[in-house]
Amino acid sequence: MTRCEQQIEFLMEIDKLKSVERQTLLVDCSRRENSAEHSWHLALMAQVLAEHAAEPVDVSHATQMALAHDLVEIDAGDTYVYDAVGNQDKAERELRAAVRIFSLLPTEQAAKLRALWDEFEAVATPESRFANALDRLQPLLNNWRSGGAGWRGRNIRRTQVLQRMEPVRLGLPALWPLVIRILDEAAAAGWLREE
Amino acid sequence: MTRCEQQIEFLMEIDKLKSVERQTLLVDCSRRENSAEHSWHLALMAQVLAEHAAEPVDVSHATQMALAHDLVEIDAGDTYVYDAVGNQDKAERELRAAVRIFSLLPTEQAAKLRALWDEFEAVATPESRFANALDRLQPLLNNWRSGGAGWRGRNIRRTQVLQRMEPVRLGLPALWPLVIRILDEAAAAGWLREE
Repeated sequence: MTRCEQQIEFLMEIDKLKSVERQTLLVDCSRRENSAEHSWHLALMAQVLAEHAAEPVDVSHATQMALAHDLVEIDAGDTYVYDAVGNQDKAERELRAAVRIFSLLPTEQAAKLRALWDEFEAVATPESRFANALDRLQPLLNNWRSGGAGWRGRNIRRTQVLQRMEPVRLGLPALWPLVIRILDEAAAAGWLREE
Repeated sequence: MTRCEQQIEFLMEIDKLKSVERQTLLVDCSRRENSAEHSWHLALMAQVLAEHAAEPVDVSHATQMALAHDLVEIDAGDTYVYDAVGNQDKAERELRAAVRIFSLLPTEQAAKLRALWDEFEAVATPESRFANALDRLQPLLNNWRSGGAGWRGRNIRRTQVLQRMEPVRLGLPALWPLVIRILDEAAAAGWLREE
């Protein structure tokens, strides 16, 4: 295959991310969102909320991470955060997926995407802390604005969600008061279990 | 509203782009794609195909344009390219949408997004020529890989699609042989009308 053909193969393969369903619903509750549109949402959040990042961030780099961070789900699927069994072999499944999917690209482009994904997973740079904060904040916002649709009937505790939001406290401290307000409302409305 | 509240309002409003259906189908033919996931696909195409752009491009800038170029469809809808009636007032509908949607943001962020959209529409910079080329190439690729599903039964002529692909010839000349090959295959298979 030519270099260009390899690139087209990769770009057609990633169309599959549009079929990976997440637990989060759209704000209008019409359906669950998928990982491709979720990644788009994060990329625009990165543009809009960069000024609130805990540390100075390269927005372009954070955007690239947001766009690529879920590609491994094409093979590994989206693992629900409160699914204890699914989370046991999540890392292994995602690693196999990264090897297969990124290697469709020419070598140096594969390495670049792999590095972005590794960076997102390691959460050890300002951009990855920012991108991880966005990745936690977006479903919280959607759950809130959809009337708790992603939480209700699941017996989820407020403290579980609070713990899950820790990257927001670290990466987007200016948004933390909003997180607390949302959790207060969600508990008061009975969408989350208060303890 | 505080600045942060304005930003959150905007970020919740744009969730609606996930519900704007396009004519293009997913590669697996399972459903039509929406404008949010289409925008995500373009943003990743920008990363991967930048080396083939006709002129040197700022990839980060082209990526931002790809992410924002369809936001006006939240109000204006996606107008099918071969819909003569819908295209009559498309510009006016999209302009009203731009004013409403971008102005949810703090002033200077609204101006930045508006400038990106204006630039995409004017097609007068290297980045906008590149982004417009991607915007035409992606549905062609999806139609091709889905076995012509977006074309069949619509009585579309090969020359119509060829004309529609002109931005690819200008912005991504290295991809032009692939465009011609796809149109040859589509015509031979009867997905497009040959003349």
